Amino acid sequence: MKNEKLVLAKRPMGLPAADTWDLQSEEVSEIEEGQILVAQKYISLDPAMRGWINDRPSYIPPVEIGAVMRAGSVGEVIKSKHEKFNEGDTVTGWGGVQHFAVSDGKGWFKVDPNLAPLPTYISTLGMPGMTAYFGILEVGQIKAGETVLVSGAAGAVGSVVGQIAKIKDCRVVGIAGGPAKCAYIVDELGFDAAIDYKAGGVKKAMRAACPDGVDVYFDNVGGDILDAALTQINRKARIVICGAISQYNNKEAVRGPSNYLSLLVNRARMEGMVVLDYAKDYGKAAIEMSGWMQAGKLKSKEDVYEGIENFHETFLRLFSGEKMGKLVLKM
Amino acid sequence: MKNEKLVLAKRPMGLPAADTWDLQSEEVSEIEEGQILVAQKYISLDPAMRGWINDRPSYIPPVEIGAVMRAGSVGEVIKSKHEKFNEGDTVTGWGGVQHFAVSDGKGWFKVDPNLAPLPTYISTLGMPGMTAYFGILEVGQIKAGETVLVSGAAGAVGSVVGQIAKIKDCRVVGIAGGPAKCAYIVDELGFDAAIDYKAGGVKKAMRAACPDGVDVYFDNVGGDILDAALTQINRKARIVICGAISQYNNKEAVRGPSNYLSLLVNRARMEGMVVLDYAKDYGKAAIEMSGWMQAGKLKSKEDVYEGIENFHETFLRLFSGEKMGKLVLKM
Repeated sequence: MKNEKLVLAKRPMGLPAADTWDLQSEEVSEIEEGQILVAQKYISLDPAMRGWINDRPSYIPPVEIGAVMRAGSVGEVIKSKHEKFNEGDTVTGWGGVQHFAVSDGKGWFKVDPNLAPLPTYISTLGMPGMTAYFGILEVGQIKAGETVLVSGAAGAVGSVVGQIAKIKDCRVVGIAGGPAKCAYIVDELGFDAAIDYKAGGVKKAMRAACPDGVDVYFDNVGGDILDAALTQINRKARIVICGAISQYNNKEAVRGPSNYLSLLVNRARMEGMVVLDYAKDYGKAAIEMSGWMQAGKLKSKEDVYEGIENFHETFLRLFSGEKMGKLVLKM
Repeated sequence: MKNEKLVLAKRPMGLPAADTWDLQSEEVSEIEEGQILVAQKYISLDPAMRGWINDRPSYIPPVEIGAVMRAGSVGEVIKSKHEKFNEGDTVTGWGGVQHFAVSDGKGWFKVDPNLAPLPTYISTLGMPGMTAYFGILEVGQIKAGETVLVSGAAGAVGSVVGQIAKIKDCRVVGIAGGPAKCAYIVDELGFDAAIDYKAGGVKKAMRAACPDGVDVYFDNVGGDILDAALTQINRKARIVICGAISQYNNKEAVRGPSNYLSLLVNRARMEGMVVLDYAKDYGKAAIEMSGWMQAGKLKSKEDVYEGIENFHETFLRLFSGEKMGKLVLKM
């Protein structure tokens, strides 16, 4: 049995070119005692992946040159010598960009394929959903009646952030690129307002959409939009730093938020978060979020592409914005 | 009786020139029911004053053109038609840059001139000391054993921040300009180490002085030093944004901290503070700090200049760094 795997061939400068990765084929190895073999069904594509291929210390070690590209995944256990997993289990974990993953089971969880479509387990019930849940509730500390602004609002994290804030009775304003995404977050997801950053005039649009100012800004993008949001925050506002997609492919230094002294004037806080810190509570969060999904209060949208050979082209959609919802690659 | 007063003549661009202010003379007006007349002894000079003369909304309204320059002060009540104050009371409040202040008593407090020298009441027992106290304890949330880094460490706020952190059993590293200030904070104030930012190599010096990383960074300066500190922070670090003196006289946009994504990687927090929010607890803090001063654990140092006509030249010392400790003007 052959495994096709995508390995990191070299470290990119700026936006990764196609030769960043190399598609290789190898015989699937026999599993040892304590291991599982997973036939992967769907691979998660996330902006954070761009950071993982830099040769810099971060919250997790970089992907090594020659190693399989790191990715979250969902699949089926097809062989098991691990006491916690059986053949036929549906599991989610860090399978990487490959057809078959051999693992000692660390970081893998069983999921119920009857409760939700498989891609949901790497989307709203996976890392992006957990990021949204803990980011907006634990770091953002939202309270009913507050105004919540979120960037990347049609994306995997932002769309869930906004919907959770609506569930918690906040006024929710999303920032997204283009009329289709803006219509989607208002009409489909129930956001109170949308700001199309591609239309320009973001600061003015924020002021119009947030007449009472911004209590919590959930930032996925950094750059100009973070700077504009800083001018709109209220006293004791919380800014959740979840990502900075506008800066990930920079060849020069990241642009710092030049309006950061608004934190001083407004006694406000800017705080970073990494979802891995909340791993012990993923289960509880998944139960609560499944409940919201079943009640129709939380919608999960995946944009599914197919084929490991299309990884690179699909990956670029993360940065071009040409996607709607969570980006997923079907194996 | 004549009052000499310094009024704001125009709004400066960049570093204020001498014609920013105008020294005027007028008859001292009779006080009305509910008012006091204060003969001012000492005026406080603080970096925040630079912000108050910009025509921008901030945490307090700008000083109006033609109005007396805002300043903290300490003096003696020489006439009172206010039930809470008597002639002869020593008081501290917002008297402005003038010899005599007429007030309705709001924001004025009686102090005991026998407990501490008068300038101390606009220094360690005044606004700068309160800023240090609440900034490092309430916002910084320091714990014994942590490493605390503070910039502007020989200044009115920074010197108190560092001494309080020592009292709380932290390792304390101060950043100051020049060998004299560095020697002062280590030899006189008991800091564990000093970094002379004028000597260059600040990031390397931070790494050497903070081998266990930085848990709390108290920032008075912004710019390059904030950016360097961001590269040295530990997980769950707190950065207290108290000021940004390196940026106050910018003619262009403030430089944002380009390493702010270190907040994400380290799940760290950057939070602004304004001392006025803690006004109801000033009394308690003053009692605790007086106790530390009497026990020899907290030293207050004032750099006293004399004469309202020398205000401008003295004010510039805030930004040139040519001062040691709290800058005060004797009336």
